Amino acid sequence: MEKLNHIIESQQFDRELLDYIFSLADLMKTDPSPFQIPGKIMATLFYEPSTRTRLSFESAMLQLGGNVISTESAQEFSSFSKGESLEDTIKVTAGYADIIALRHFEIGSAKLAASVSSKPIINAGDGAGQHPTQALLDLYTIRNHFNNINNLTVCMIGDLRYGRTVRSLCYLLGRFYNPRILFVSPKICRMEEDIRQFLTKNDVQWEEMDFQTAIKEADCIYMTRIQKERFLDMNLYAQAIDQFRLDKSVLPMIKPRAIVMHPLPREKEIHPELDDDPRMVYFEQAQNGVWIRMALIHLLLTSSR
Amino acid sequence: MEKLNHIIESQQFDRELLDYIFSLADLMKTDPSPFQIPGKIMATLFYEPSTRTRLSFESAMLQLGGNVISTESAQEFSSFSKGESLEDTIKVTAGYADIIALRHFEIGSAKLAASVSSKPIINAGDGAGQHPTQALLDLYTIRNHFNNINNLTVCMIGDLRYGRTVRSLCYLLGRFYNPRILFVSPKICRMEEDIRQFLTKNDVQWEEMDFQTAIKEADCIYMTRIQKERFLDMNLYAQAIDQFRLDKSVLPMIKPRAIVMHPLPREKEIHPELDDDPRMVYFEQAQNGVWIRMALIHLLLTSSR
Amino acid sequence: MEKLNHIIESQQFDRELLDYIFSLADLMKTDPSPFQIPGKIMATLFYEPSTRTRLSFESAMLQLGGNVISTESAQEFSSFSKGESLEDTIKVTAGYADIIALRHFEIGSAKLAASVSSKPIINAGDGAGQHPTQALLDLYTIRNHFNNINNLTVCMIGDLRYGRTVRSLCYLLGRFYNPRILFVSPKICRMEEDIRQFLTKNDVQWEEMDFQTAIKEADCIYMTRIQKERFLDMNLYAQAIDQFRLDKSVLPMIKPRAIVMHPLPREKEIHPELDDDPRMVYFEQAQNGVWIRMALIHLLLTSSR
Repeated sequence: MEKLNHIIESQQFDRELLDYIFSLADLMKTDPSPFQIPGKIMATLFYEPSTRTRLSFESAMLQLGGNVISTESAQEFSSFSKGESLEDTIKVTAGYADIIALRHFEIGSAKLAASVSSKPIINAGDGAGQHPTQALLDLYTIRNHFNNINNLTVCMIGDLRYGRTVRSLCYLLGRFYNPRILFVSPKICRMEEDIRQFLTKNDVQWEEMDFQTAIKEADCIYMTRIQKERFLDMNLYAQAIDQFRLDKSVLPMIKPRAIVMHPLPREKEIHPELDDDPRMVYFEQAQNGVWIRMALIHLLLTSSR
Repeated sequence: MEKLNHIIESQQFDRELLDYIFSLADLMKTDPSPFQIPGKIMATLFYEPSTRTRLSFESAMLQLGGNVISTESAQEFSSFSKGESLEDTIKVTAGYADIIALRHFEIGSAKLAASVSSKPIINAGDGAGQHPTQALLDLYTIRNHFNNINNLTVCMIGDLRYGRTVRSLCYLLGRFYNPRILFVSPKICRMEEDIRQFLTKNDVQWEEMDFQTAIKEADCIYMTRIQKERFLDMNLYAQAIDQFRLDKSVLPMIKPRAIVMHPLPREKEIHPELDDDPRMVYFEQAQNGVWIRMALIHLLLTSSR
Repeated sequence: MEKLNHIIESQQFDRELLDYIFSLADLMKTDPSPFQIPGKIMATLFYEPSTRTRLSFESAMLQLGGNVISTESAQEFSSFSKGESLEDTIKVTAGYADIIALRHFEIGSAKLAASVSSKPIINAGDGAGQHPTQALLDLYTIRNHFNNINNLTVCMIGDLRYGRTVRSLCYLLGRFYNPRILFVSPKICRMEEDIRQFLTKNDVQWEEMDFQTAIKEADCIYMTRIQKERFLDMNLYAQAIDQFRLDKSVLPMIKPRAIVMHPLPREKEIHPELDDDPRMVYFEQAQNGVWIRMALIHLLLTSSR
């Protein structure tokens, strides 16, 4: 394996690297004390707000014994408003920190940042582009609940068109043996052609399916938020919200050993009355983000690879 | 004493617990080194801004050797704006931190948070509800200036109706022997019936009184801000501001060993020309908040109780 | 040398103190481990946003092993909006932290803060007033590139009237032997009379000059942003932007051993195509800010002087 310099997109992770990261995350969860990197500083540069993701990165860095310098809303408050280019901001910030977690509203911004940075960049979301640490924690959650990720039926529900997380997850699932992906969405939010072609080309079975059939067949149900702003016709929106939704009435259809995931925040896709069902793993999934990010930060900041 | 799991409201503190916390705060002030909790992380979730309170909590955590992940304005920037429930935010944050200091604009929010959190919650103010750490630091300040809190005459001045701090302090004073409370306020901001009944029921002497008589009799004068927005008639507001106010002209009326407190920020209630008078203890009071919060955090995060 | 209590303005640094700070910054750069101040807390109180400066201060404090409590926008979120005076905020914050880095929008605010603070204040910019740590890092950058700061020709270009950095740098250059300063600016942004008189009085050679002649003669070219809002006539602005600008076309005019500086953020004053030229030292200059701030924080918090 070659040295990992930056974390930009899901496609850069092959099976071997995924296995390595997941094993490292397991160790972080058990006992992070052998992996401490005291004195190291992470800068969280967030050009759009994402409290959850930012706090997860910062918690990861602190649990590694490192420190954090932080911007909650770089767009509003920084030199950005004086017209500074992202490249300049990155070059300056690289003089203050050992690693940079960047959230930006433009596709490709993380790649651009990496091209000028003397320090490792982690893409914490670049607009409608990628959010690779989310994809990794999703896959890690699946892996933790099944012996392996092979031969699984994963059902993705909701906004598949604009949902960054499901798109990235499709790329990663393609790395494993015999996955089957079921897409469930309103017509207006269908999974895009590029992903469907990618799956077909990589011999991944996929099909579009109705909600009830899909949740009966799935080993893993991945729910996402349906965003109001995608709909011109509010009746169609109300219909979609009503149709693609987990509550007690559909619970019996879900397999006894299936898991239900959600990148959070949720709206009405999953009723809180289900939270105590052991198949609902979305809070565990959020927590897994910390171990995954600890593994990634450690990997980038040490020469262990 | 039973284990302390969360800090939600003033009523949960009995005499024994108060004494314990104040002794612990004394130790924190003298030397916090035996109480270090390295590796522990506090999340400050502030849904309404309160720089002062947030910095006080963060300073406390850092002086204990712990770390902080922080949101300065959770309401504006977080998943909150995407419609996430407080319960979900708390469950996720509990995966990132060992303890959560929560400031929220709704009464009862801290209690709700505690009901779903796997980690200790400290109420850092829930709307017009409670602000128990402020009440504790207030009482700690009184206790530090008198041999004990018994037999004291405490005069509360200003907005007694909406003032969270004076309401909470009334609850706590009821725990001690023979307190006497004097209420001084514009009619529109009188202390509410519920507190007056609570005091009567607990045999606490209280009376409403005019400003000048009260400050002559008080051992402790607790000033609060009178808020413009409470008044419809701006003449009444101007009158109130003018009437309930400490400056050099009234200084001779205050007892030589009395103390003057204020939760800060102040407006015109106390003229800065008094700041050097040793009876003015409001800055010491603010500083005491750090020791009290250190004691509380330590108590919640260790099995010392 | 007398004890350094606060850092308020460039004028407080004499040659001896400058040399001491620069030597300390050299040591910080090489190995900060002998200078650790664990347990110390810095508060960054920023009443106007300046992400770059704030992160630089925070990185400095963390690299010294200290901790940080931080406000990204004190003006909007703090008790400030409830009418609290700066003096009160400082007195309270001094109870939470061991040192305060203050950025405020009013000239003289840092001096006012220092007058009431029980803890060291560092002026991180007070409106159109001073920004002494920037001036020190600028001078440190010059000193690192030449054997000494004597006999240098420094050319300042752009907005010299409102540019805090160039004004402060003039004060500091006056401390050294035989400097020569060239001023290049649109008429509307000429260096002010007070600085010109100061230089004359201190036997510093200075002259106003055209762009092309100046950059040919300079050992150090200090570029600054020309701000649109200074101009009533947008044609004059466009002309100025066009005229005072470094790109490949003028690169051959610059001396082989000259350096080009900029306080950043830049707009169009320096074309990014020049960034790889070794004479362009603006990113190194930003990085130098961390070492300088480490030296200053250490100096203020220890009795090493």
